[in-house]
Amino acid sequence: MIRAGIVGATGYTALELILILLRHPQVEMTRLTSRVDDPTPVAAVHPVLRERLDLMVTRYDPEDFRQHVDVAFCCLPHAASSPVVRELADRGLRVIDFSADYRLDTLADFQAIYAAEHADPERLGNVPYGLPELFRNSIAEAKVVANPGCFPTSAILPLAPLVRDGMIETGDIVIDSKTGVSGGGRTPKAAFHFPECNESVAAYAVGTHRHGPEINQIVRRWSGIEIESVFVPHLIPMTRGILSTIYVHPAPNASADRIAECLADFYRESRFARITDSLPATRDVSGTNCCDIAIRPLGRRIAIISTIDNLVKGASGAAVQNMNVMFGIEETLAL
Amino acid sequence: MIRAGIVGATGYTALELILILLRHPQVEMTRLTSRVDDPTPVAAVHPVLRERLDLMVTRYDPEDFRQHVDVAFCCLPHAASSPVVRELADRGLRVIDFSADYRLDTLADFQAIYAAEHADPERLGNVPYGLPELFRNSIAEAKVVANPGCFPTSAILPLAPLVRDGMIETGDIVIDSKTGVSGGGRTPKAAFHFPECNESVAAYAVGTHRHGPEINQIVRRWSGIEIESVFVPHLIPMTRGILSTIYVHPAPNASADRIAECLADFYRESRFARITDSLPATRDVSGTNCCDIAIRPLGRRIAIISTIDNLVKGASGAAVQNMNVMFGIEETLAL
Amino acid sequence: MIRAGIVGATGYTALELILILLRHPQVEMTRLTSRVDDPTPVAAVHPVLRERLDLMVTRYDPEDFRQHVDVAFCCLPHAASSPVVRELADRGLRVIDFSADYRLDTLADFQAIYAAEHADPERLGNVPYGLPELFRNSIAEAKVVANPGCFPTSAILPLAPLVRDGMIETGDIVIDSKTGVSGGGRTPKAAFHFPECNESVAAYAVGTHRHGPEINQIVRRWSGIEIESVFVPHLIPMTRGILSTIYVHPAPNASADRIAECLADFYRESRFARITDSLPATRDVSGTNCCDIAIRPLGRRIAIISTIDNLVKGASGAAVQNMNVMFGIEETLAL
Amino acid sequence: MIRAGIVGATGYTALELILILLRHPQVEMTRLTSRVDDPTPVAAVHPVLRERLDLMVTRYDPEDFRQHVDVAFCCLPHAASSPVVRELADRGLRVIDFSADYRLDTLADFQAIYAAEHADPERLGNVPYGLPELFRNSIAEAKVVANPGCFPTSAILPLAPLVRDGMIETGDIVIDSKTGVSGGGRTPKAAFHFPECNESVAAYAVGTHRHGPEINQIVRRWSGIEIESVFVPHLIPMTRGILSTIYVHPAPNASADRIAECLADFYRESRFARITDSLPATRDVSGTNCCDIAIRPLGRRIAIISTIDNLVKGASGAAVQNMNVMFGIEETLAL
Repeated sequence: MIRAGIVGATGYTALELILILLRHPQVEMTRLTSRVDDPTPVAAVHPVLRERLDLMVTRYDPEDFRQHVDVAFCCLPHAASSPVVRELADRGLRVIDFSADYRLDTLADFQAIYAAEHADPERLGNVPYGLPELFRNSIAEAKVVANPGCFPTSAILPLAPLVRDGMIETGDIVIDSKTGVSGGGRTPKAAFHFPECNESVAAYAVGTHRHGPEINQIVRRWSGIEIESVFVPHLIPMTRGILSTIYVHPAPNASADRIAECLADFYRESRFARITDSLPATRDVSGTNCCDIAIRPLGRRIAIISTIDNLVKGASGAAVQNMNVMFGIEETLAL
Repeated sequence: MIRAGIVGATGYTALELILILLRHPQVEMTRLTSRVDDPTPVAAVHPVLRERLDLMVTRYDPEDFRQHVDVAFCCLPHAASSPVVRELADRGLRVIDFSADYRLDTLADFQAIYAAEHADPERLGNVPYGLPELFRNSIAEAKVVANPGCFPTSAILPLAPLVRDGMIETGDIVIDSKTGVSGGGRTPKAAFHFPECNESVAAYAVGTHRHGPEINQIVRRWSGIEIESVFVPHLIPMTRGILSTIYVHPAPNASADRIAECLADFYRESRFARITDSLPATRDVSGTNCCDIAIRPLGRRIAIISTIDNLVKGASGAAVQNMNVMFGIEETLAL
Repeated sequence: MIRAGIVGATGYTALELILILLRHPQVEMTRLTSRVDDPTPVAAVHPVLRERLDLMVTRYDPEDFRQHVDVAFCCLPHAASSPVVRELADRGLRVIDFSADYRLDTLADFQAIYAAEHADPERLGNVPYGLPELFRNSIAEAKVVANPGCFPTSAILPLAPLVRDGMIETGDIVIDSKTGVSGGGRTPKAAFHFPECNESVAAYAVGTHRHGPEINQIVRRWSGIEIESVFVPHLIPMTRGILSTIYVHPAPNASADRIAECLADFYRESRFARITDSLPATRDVSGTNCCDIAIRPLGRRIAIISTIDNLVKGASGAAVQNMNVMFGIEETLAL
Repeated sequence: MIRAGIVGATGYTALELILILLRHPQVEMTRLTSRVDDPTPVAAVHPVLRERLDLMVTRYDPEDFRQHVDVAFCCLPHAASSPVVRELADRGLRVIDFSADYRLDTLADFQAIYAAEHADPERLGNVPYGLPELFRNSIAEAKVVANPGCFPTSAILPLAPLVRDGMIETGDIVIDSKTGVSGGGRTPKAAFHFPECNESVAAYAVGTHRHGPEINQIVRRWSGIEIESVFVPHLIPMTRGILSTIYVHPAPNASADRIAECLADFYRESRFARITDSLPATRDVSGTNCCDIAIRPLGRRIAIISTIDNLVKGASGAAVQNMNVMFGIEETLAL
């Protein structure tokens, strides 16, 4: 049995992770941590776990993890994560980091975009990006994996193969994303107050969201080709799900059909990336680790519609998928 | 008092129209029609009107309208509308038509896009498009006005002045719209079944929605300049509201600030078009006749975010605004 | 023109009040207050008011109110309200208080239930309860009116006449209420965080909610008859609306029909209390000042179903109705 | 491997059943039926199953079932179900019936309440009610099991032990239930049209819902004690979940604490019935087979709050739990 520990176990992604690991036949959760004063039953933090997981939430202790944990899932905010990842990785644990701390290419990129210190600059740049569909081999050999951002997952999966295969123009890509509110985390804020987001839709962080550069970097890292995209996220009144509508110019002679075929070919062996004929709805990936992608002609452009469950393929499902790859288990187990 | 009649009074836009007209000090509703077998109290059709409007829904009769109605609001589907509009206009009534029958330039356009017969081809082309912000003078003199489509309203208001003033490139405009479910009408359908659209978002009619050509034609009609835009609507889990995110290339030297200024100048006297500094949410136009518009830089592009209440400025509020203009009343009355 | 001021103008009930007063032909809003550091445009607090109300939110000053305000709406929390009400009433203003400070019979009741100091105990007990349907004459002569609680409005309106007329047993009344989230106010809290209340329903404050005793007291105050009811509120995933299902035993010989008739008779002249044949939905009172009530037989019991918009008849609509009565204006004006 | 077939595989409960069975290590789905003209991939009916279940939906054929199915889940409407159940049971299959056809005691009861023919009156009355918490032994030996109604499950689980143990008065029980919209099925209807049920709550079938008698009968069948309850369901704007608030009079000397203890004792070994200290929300049982129950004092009454996921413990989870019991598998497997 793989012994799993979760650092930062009180949020929505941690809960989703726990629910998936409960179904995993080769994993035993041994440690859940948070900044609690006293050990607290996990069901007091997540009532849905009543009588399903009999484990205490305790304070994080790296030595305790060294003894009782094989793989640590680190669900901390950016900048708070790298110190923990470092001390766990240095102690020999496998670590899957949910934060943005290890996703970008360089320390300079991280600091430019996140305006924060980084506690582990040497490791940054040697950590694979946790999309097994693209980086499976590196992930299989990695000690630390950077779990992808939710919006980037929905955009990179369709874009990367199309860019590499020269199917689309790289210079003018528009990514319009719609997300459920759980992506904003569990801390109450005005923007996520029910009467504020119910019956309303709004754009936010237009031109400034940190997932924009992440998309561009990872597509380039994988394909070797620079792209220029713009990214606008929108908050819509639902709990989970992301739909990204991506507007691209096809390369000369690349029809919608050929583009769909290119993706279908590339993902033929990837169970979680599904190229669909009908237009996908987030409902149809809800609770699954799938990314549904459809292609449509749109005047001289092509529309790519891509859907994920932000808490599963956009966070905790991807993390378990990465764990499976890192430990040489069947990639789809428990997913 | 202006005597108002509504043809097709059972839908959501008709109800919204009734609620607005109830507040209008110079209007008396005299006729509400539907394909009822027997006269039916309007409160049986719209329970919210209990004890607020004591009027029967009856079958439509043009002669009856001629005697008792000064302005007819025609809330029928496309193709069903033009025969009614014609017989009412021929009888001397003012008519505000909610359908698409009189919005496009030519019969050929109508037939190409709607694949339907048109009962009034002579009048088509001589009917102003009911956006008083752009076509106020023609509307003031018109007998028949084509009430705009909901998506087009949200897109044309920001685009038209920018195109005319050369602030944006006209060749590559992306319009990504998000709409509440009331836009789909009151007839139950699978796509609008609560468990199907709750907790889900999906694109629909990608590249084929009929409001796409309407946007392009009306911008050209008003500005004299041809544009090329693509349009993708999305259904999101709320009842009312439209947010359109419009991705444009600024003309050389046209910054986001200059573009915002251009719109603010143009709409300085238009109370319902509001250029906002903060990013608008549909909640903040809900129940109002306003269109809130914000401008943001976005890499080499500009993002235009535009919000309306699809049932008010996107339908019935616009209709009353048009009526006010047609009858020489203060344009904002009851709105 | 009546000059109106609102103390505590940033919440949802204050916004609803502003929207109603904007439609009121005999009211001019002159003062809006909050604990702002500097005067702030009201549209910055409530974006929906952009270009509709050009007024600053300022700090509250009783002398300033004395000079510029005829009627003050006090939208403060309990205990914070009575000091303000006292100093405004002592300066001769009419005051409509949204808090619970003046609703109960005695200081002892207030302190027992709210466990708080009261700054105006002399006035408490001489302030009419602001349901004009029941206390119209007292309200017409009052300087200060206690605006009712939202749940109590939905329960008292049907119960009071039935208790007085001996139509129901008074000893065993069950009130099961369902409310939208706006009733919880505008301050973000975990219970009102979108992902927590979306797709979920829960009971809260079972047996301890302060509106329980308010219901019992006001029914007794009006009818002279003691009742014993239990009250359980539930939070449901919508923004506005309250539905109360009230389970009563009919008095001997009092059928459902007779009970419905009793209410219909009593409210024949009250436009806002509507006895309906069909089962009411909160949607059908949304945005209105109405309370829709239906009666159904239920085994040996009777079910009373009562619906209001918690922000209108449950708060700000009632307040304007009270103002109309206090100033001798038509009671339904602007409502 | 147990070979499972589903008759009527296109609805929401069937989909939930398929999702649970996909996780079941000892079940292989072999047949899915519907009134299709031609065999149709199940993913065309339920897009969420894309690449997860490669099975065709075909027309129902009892002989085909006899050869390829060990356990049939019959998801047909009442009256349509009994002919199918009979021919499958007569062919030796185990059958779990989702309809109401076998839930009531006698043919007379069924006909009185459902006003329909019954194709299998001999078997009716010998079929255990599928709540293993109460009827485990009968279910273990049964060929046919009547899967419980969703509302009854939420009410019977807390009521039955309390009635049997004399903890509550039996003569005056009020059951106020709130349900998500998926309980209404997948067929679009006006009542379930998104703009009609979003932002609204309403009672329905007051005093006439067929689940009322089911509750009373099953409590009596299990406890031997007649009860008299009234039942009112309410439709609230969410997809899944039921919360029932049950108002009872405690027996003399039966405090809230003793009542909670009685339930906790009775369900100590039942993993799916959880007596909770905190007030349960449907969110915390969503996607689980659990029924969370809390007890609160309420004046002279006691409030019992009970929550389930209507599609899981209220339908398909219960069905799999029943199957596990019938086949001697661990009861909680896949749940």
